[in-house]
Amino acid sequence: MTSPSSFRALCRQELHTGPTSGILPGHVQANLLILPQQAAESFEKLCRRNPVACPIISKTVGHPGKLEHHSRLINDESFDIRTDFPKYNIYNRGKLIEQKNNCVNEWTADHVGFLIGCSFSFEDALIQAGLAPKNVIRGTNVSMFVTTKYLDSAGIFHQCPYVVSMRPYKVAVVETVREITSPFEKMHGEPLDWGFDAVGRLGIRDLRKPEYGDPIDIAEDEIPVFWACGVTPQLAISTVGHLIPGVVIGHTPGHMLVLDATQVV
Amino acid sequence: MTSPSSFRALCRQELHTGPTSGILPGHVQANLLILPQQAAESFEKLCRRNPVACPIISKTVGHPGKLEHHSRLINDESFDIRTDFPKYNIYNRGKLIEQKNNCVNEWTADHVGFLIGCSFSFEDALIQAGLAPKNVIRGTNVSMFVTTKYLDSAGIFHQCPYVVSMRPYKVAVVETVREITSPFEKMHGEPLDWGFDAVGRLGIRDLRKPEYGDPIDIAEDEIPVFWACGVTPQLAISTVGHLIPGVVIGHTPGHMLVLDATQVV
Repeated sequence: MTSPSSFRALCRQELHTGPTSGILPGHVQANLLILPQQAAESFEKLCRRNPVACPIISKTVGHPGKLEHHSRLINDESFDIRTDFPKYNIYNRGKLIEQKNNCVNEWTADHVGFLIGCSFSFEDALIQAGLAPKNVIRGTNVSMFVTTKYLDSAGIFHQCPYVVSMRPYKVAVVETVREITSPFEKMHGEPLDWGFDAVGRLGIRDLRKPEYGDPIDIAEDEIPVFWACGVTPQLAISTVGHLIPGVVIGHTPGHMLVLDATQVV
Repeated sequence: MTSPSSFRALCRQELHTGPTSGILPGHVQANLLILPQQAAESFEKLCRRNPVACPIISKTVGHPGKLEHHSRLINDESFDIRTDFPKYNIYNRGKLIEQKNNCVNEWTADHVGFLIGCSFSFEDALIQAGLAPKNVIRGTNVSMFVTTKYLDSAGIFHQCPYVVSMRPYKVAVVETVREITSPFEKMHGEPLDWGFDAVGRLGIRDLRKPEYGDPIDIAEDEIPVFWACGVTPQLAISTVGHLIPGVVIGHTPGHMLVLDATQVV
């Protein structure tokens, strides 16, 4: 793959419809949520109130090719939010009804699309610092847990829990890991908590049984380190989706948008 | 009292050294936190990551009279963050060591001052909508509780709990109360949770025994409504204050800065 722009062209032509992990490392990848206008207002407020769990990178109102901060994120003018992700999940009243390679028929002028930060970017930085997460080394998916920590409510979004990702690290390197991930403010930034006592604070049911992703062992000299996780906004949609009239669209997990940007501030 | 500017002049001359509740209603009042530069960087990040609990209205770096957004907040040039609050709490290593009418001797060029939003403003709006909080009607202090919901960590700030204020309301008006307080984004905005089941979600020990302020009864047709509370950053300072070298200064609770602004967006 030569450039993000040519990769997006492949997605647009439905020639790449698979996951994006490992594609063009160093380039920011983004999650997607497309909502009808009224729900979008609540969602944007939810994100403003909970920027660590729900970091908005950009949005587009009614026009599928016109992103806020477009030139900082995407270098070409052919971008289309309805086609440039490899795969889309189509939801109705909070239920997944279909997976498609584009959402041209579902998008309406009433829809607002949000690009949301994901943690792939800080994983790159950790790898480059010689602190590759164990799940990356093993080629498994990161462990993700539903917590009893709730987002600060906003509009229709009430009782929506944080989802956290967990990566085990040796105690001695936790401060370094915090420092490395801290600047990635649009990709959840530094860990929100760490240590075995954080399991209780976050109300995690069983550290060996993640609600999403794969389990990972924690060695005797390691502790769990928890970051906010991009599954949080998706779980929020399932939680209050029955209140949203009209179609909601997300990316299919793992099937992200690849941006030209290598850093988003 | 004729104007915020003449009230601040009285504070500056130490002719008013008492609380500010009921002073010039309609004008925004602000909390204060002054920190040495290094801790200030962590604190600012904490606020960015937790904007509902710790809403920064403005800051001043090294210069006690020069606020960000000065002209929007303060109409006169004689403003001085070291003298214009009625009373200051002086802290060393997280311990309160003195209360003073100014902090001229404590302020150094290394200090950064933060103005932080407080909920007085949205209480005004509730009163004007005929939904005066019960504690306002009774002339008591609002009930405040320490929760087991923790701020998303930032720098030296770790394991710092949310403090919430609680105002009882009838179920039928809760949606209206949410709508009225929602626009006050720099003053904690809409409630973060509500209902008796929120007591469990927030880990509140005993609804009849607030950790700060006065207790208030909840009638049979009422439920508790919880907002983020300006005591949160102060409790954060007590929690990690031992890690901060140098003097930290806050306003004495209830002794706020009165701004010319009537709304802060």
